[in-house]
Amino acid sequence: MSTFKEFMEYSSKLVSESMVESVQKLKAPERLKESMTYSLQAGGKRIRPLLLFATLDAFGKNVEIGIKPACALEMIHTYSLIHDDLPCMDDDDFRRGKPTNHKVFGEDLAVLAGDGLLTYAFQLITEMNDPNVSDQVKIRLISELAIAAGPEGMVAGQVDDMDGESKQLTGEELQYIHERKTGKMLMYPVIAGAILANSTAEQLSHLTQFAYKLGIAFQIQDDILDVIGDEEVLGKPVGSDIENDKTTYVKLYTVEGAKNRLHTFIFEAKQHIKACGIKDDLLLSICDFVENRSF
Amino acid sequence: MSTFKEFMEYSSKLVSESMVESVQKLKAPERLKESMTYSLQAGGKRIRPLLLFATLDAFGKNVEIGIKPACALEMIHTYSLIHDDLPCMDDDDFRRGKPTNHKVFGEDLAVLAGDGLLTYAFQLITEMNDPNVSDQVKIRLISELAIAAGPEGMVAGQVDDMDGESKQLTGEELQYIHERKTGKMLMYPVIAGAILANSTAEQLSHLTQFAYKLGIAFQIQDDILDVIGDEEVLGKPVGSDIENDKTTYVKLYTVEGAKNRLHTFIFEAKQHIKACGIKDDLLLSICDFVENRSF
Repeated sequence: MSTFKEFMEYSSKLVSESMVESVQKLKAPERLKESMTYSLQAGGKRIRPLLLFATLDAFGKNVEIGIKPACALEMIHTYSLIHDDLPCMDDDDFRRGKPTNHKVFGEDLAVLAGDGLLTYAFQLITEMNDPNVSDQVKIRLISELAIAAGPEGMVAGQVDDMDGESKQLTGEELQYIHERKTGKMLMYPVIAGAILANSTAEQLSHLTQFAYKLGIAFQIQDDILDVIGDEEVLGKPVGSDIENDKTTYVKLYTVEGAKNRLHTFIFEAKQHIKACGIKDDLLLSICDFVENRSF
Repeated sequence: MSTFKEFMEYSSKLVSESMVESVQKLKAPERLKESMTYSLQAGGKRIRPLLLFATLDAFGKNVEIGIKPACALEMIHTYSLIHDDLPCMDDDDFRRGKPTNHKVFGEDLAVLAGDGLLTYAFQLITEMNDPNVSDQVKIRLISELAIAAGPEGMVAGQVDDMDGESKQLTGEELQYIHERKTGKMLMYPVIAGAILANSTAEQLSHLTQFAYKLGIAFQIQDDILDVIGDEEVLGKPVGSDIENDKTTYVKLYTVEGAKNRLHTFIFEAKQHIKACGIKDDLLLSICDFVENRSF
């Protein structure tokens, strides 16, 4: 794999094709499979699988041993978007320029497609059949994923986010919400990669710190792009945070201040990677991508 | 444990208390925990945990090794009721005489409480810490649960059920819907108990057949009770199937015909239990309970 861009495209294609193939072979109602597949194919950066594959590559491992947990993670990310877009939640009609799941398949099927993706994600990990992946490792992968996605992780973050919408938050409160809402799901692929690669405890600790910092950086750039981003490139309307009077890093620190914080978090994330003693080119490139992304 | 009734009460209390305790200790938003707990405490027959504990007892095992999978299963059953009651699904205001989750906590939180229960269920199984339960067994327990609850199981059944509401179904079609919608979730506890008890392949085969027949019997009695049941005892209105022109066993075969089929399925279920060569008193009592239940 010669360049980061090529690795990113390879990684995205690998996980997209594998997810769709897994769903297609299910003995499930066609409408359900269509609804699940529609959202899985709706695009996105596939940053979570990318992080998992890049972590495996950094340890000299074949990225293919991570396909199933990468798909599981992206399926859970996808289910959370489907449920988040529902009329009773954020009530969004479009995502990445395409009608949201419930606009195409109806609310009832959208709820069930989300439930199906979430449940199937855990099944996928149990189906890992590489002889080098022990049952103990699979249990750790399932446990970490459930913690990241569940009522102490992403689901908690969603509730906090709902409750915080009308409130003015401090920087600390904002960071705490993001840590649960998006942070843990961005940390999972790095932790999963480290577990699959049998990292040392010290490496795992640095990688966890790396992923934590990267996750906050990712969110800061999200807030910046909502103010100065290009709707065409982003695939969603900008300015919605200001419209909803939402507490963001830009609101708290201005665009310039947010950019400074973004740079600091990226710098610190890179330091943790460099301390690991692993082949770090792809992970460092992901840091640059997160800092400079326009979509 | 001297009588079936005592065992049933013990089993119900054990799983109810354990579920609530597990949720209470989560580091999650209080409102989310309240919403999850509300539905976990809304009662119900707890037939699924009962089946798991009775299967363990039949093999002379301590029922306590099954607490976490029993709780996981009941949490998934509970999440399915929360999502099923949503306005975009069955739009029910009451369940077991109490306001449904979204009536009390709002639709957004009801969706998230369901998502939280589903995700946490899988985490719970990873937390089993009995030294006699290997990681291989945990993986099987997670795999079977995801298959029973996911897009090839309960979620598929929900979609079929939605699609079948307006159609006249044959007996075969009806049985297929129930097999996925409720059957697999009733088979899971028996399979999980057999896995935990290290049953032989032949015993597992008989127990699977037993649970399959029992599941259909359970559904037939559901259909009968919707016609001749007592609203007070049932805790829900009767006659809704006729009102919605739904295909049921009673509609296909009359009350008498449905009762005959119920009796046949229970008879066959018992035969499979008797063929297992295990201590079968509790499992046989469950058969009688399912045939004669009035709630």
